[in-house]
Amino acid sequence: MRETELVDQIEQWWRHRPASDAHVLVGPGDDCAVVQFGAQPMLLSVDQLVAGRHIAAAEVAGEAGVDRVARKAMARALSDIAAMGGRPACALAAAGIPGGFAHASLLAARLACWADHWGCPLIGGDLTATDGPLSLAITVVGWPHPQRGPVLRAGAQPGDLVAVTGRVGGAVRSGRHGRFEPRLREGARLCDLLGSQLHAMIDLSDGLGLDAARLARASGVRIELEVDRIPMAEQVDDWRSAIAEGEDYELCLCVSPSAGPLLRLDDPPTPVSVIGRVRAGAGCVFRCPDGTEQDGGALGWVHALGPTDVQ
Amino acid sequence: MRETELVDQIEQWWRHRPASDAHVLVGPGDDCAVVQFGAQPMLLSVDQLVAGRHIAAAEVAGEAGVDRVARKAMARALSDIAAMGGRPACALAAAGIPGGFAHASLLAARLACWADHWGCPLIGGDLTATDGPLSLAITVVGWPHPQRGPVLRAGAQPGDLVAVTGRVGGAVRSGRHGRFEPRLREGARLCDLLGSQLHAMIDLSDGLGLDAARLARASGVRIELEVDRIPMAEQVDDWRSAIAEGEDYELCLCVSPSAGPLLRLDDPPTPVSVIGRVRAGAGCVFRCPDGTEQDGGALGWVHALGPTDVQ
Repeated sequence: MRETELVDQIEQWWRHRPASDAHVLVGPGDDCAVVQFGAQPMLLSVDQLVAGRHIAAAEVAGEAGVDRVARKAMARALSDIAAMGGRPACALAAAGIPGGFAHASLLAARLACWADHWGCPLIGGDLTATDGPLSLAITVVGWPHPQRGPVLRAGAQPGDLVAVTGRVGGAVRSGRHGRFEPRLREGARLCDLLGSQLHAMIDLSDGLGLDAARLARASGVRIELEVDRIPMAEQVDDWRSAIAEGEDYELCLCVSPSAGPLLRLDDPPTPVSVIGRVRAGAGCVFRCPDGTEQDGGALGWVHALGPTDVQ
Repeated sequence: MRETELVDQIEQWWRHRPASDAHVLVGPGDDCAVVQFGAQPMLLSVDQLVAGRHIAAAEVAGEAGVDRVARKAMARALSDIAAMGGRPACALAAAGIPGGFAHASLLAARLACWADHWGCPLIGGDLTATDGPLSLAITVVGWPHPQRGPVLRAGAQPGDLVAVTGRVGGAVRSGRHGRFEPRLREGARLCDLLGSQLHAMIDLSDGLGLDAARLARASGVRIELEVDRIPMAEQVDDWRSAIAEGEDYELCLCVSPSAGPLLRLDDPPTPVSVIGRVRAGAGCVFRCPDGTEQDGGALGWVHALGPTDVQ
């Protein structure tokens, strides 16, 4: 089974479950769940980092490696808060510590430090010994933007502009995946600037094509991206394989066409590039300068889960 | 390093960190953290279950094994909400799926089912492939009791009665650790009945001695338990080794002496037994009928984390 299939299945179960819970505003299937606590809606998400999977085993070694693990684990989780336009409130860390790992204490310290760095105090956690690789599960809680509210994947409308922050492609080969800044300030600032004209947003963890296709599916629309407008990272030659690496952690957003002139960030001065349009229909395609099209959903990083995977 | 040492270290860091966050009411060191969201305080906790560690690898096999894993993972996490007297609000599940595991879909379904069973909708999660054993990190969010508020480990006072729900000892050997009911109804009902006379509470995950010692330490008191008053599970002969198994998931509570007559649960009809007293001082001791004393903190289950452990 592929990860995407199981995630689809879980979303189906959620929609058809007999129980209903008035306080759950958004369940599985978006970057964060949204839950109403008293009068306050909150964002909730969990994300994992496993040594040898999400970070090369060689990069975990030594004290510098421990810091890389802590930073990336926290940044990945916070990218989901950024994708909703939210502000971090607090985090919990669950760690599986292998027998040969001598830096459990340093890891805890670096996790707490990076959590504070991004304004997201580490308020609790759980530690266990494991026979497997070093693994972290980071839960983050956030406040939605006070005026705009949570920005979901669903909400894109035909005619919308599609934009992306920063530059994409080649994040793994370049090492950028290990030192990216979660786009928290950008996500919040886009909510400030665009308000209700910001229709939908997602963070790019598995590649622009696959993640834009997810947004299109959640919104019930088609996304058409112009290859020659995509802001590629430096040293990217083959855009297809570069984009398929995933791990960009940029934001992809859909805004009403009248909001185009507002798509500019000064603080922080992060580029925002319009790269395509939303249409009626389904799927996500890349349009090449030669007029050919490529299926965006086929370009990305998908985990295999268990032995039934044949891809 | 032992788990307890690292947890102590994390609590020290928390107390001495420069940042302060007004919305964090209780940080690391209790069964749950307590965070203020708007006008609503909420409980947050994360707990892990690793195959081969928290459940025997043989017990994980087959579809029945998958159900056992899901049930125990969810129940363990919810026991922390019970220990605060809280009511579950929602859960997130992070799963590490080994290559040979064919039941990822069933596992997700059973997790969602058990979460609903205990009134704690599974609102999101994360799935990853792993080279290690099957592992789950379950984050739970809960509402504190509306009148009593969150019941912390700190709060026990000299003179208090110490009580325990249900029966303890031999949970691993008897298999009870895999089918226990988290004491959610009991925790909430004790808050109803006792209100502010319920001074402190903890759930018994690592053994009565070790967990009572934790409560004593958090409260700055000494706990003295009478061995012949402890409600032992059936078929327990050697109380010391039976208690050291941990995994009882009963509640241990400290109440003002005048509340003794109120220590009775009819719905659910779970026994509540007074087993000792709180004194001024430090530590936790078991007093045997022959007048000898045994250090409670030395009787329990402690994870070793990494190669520096020498115990």
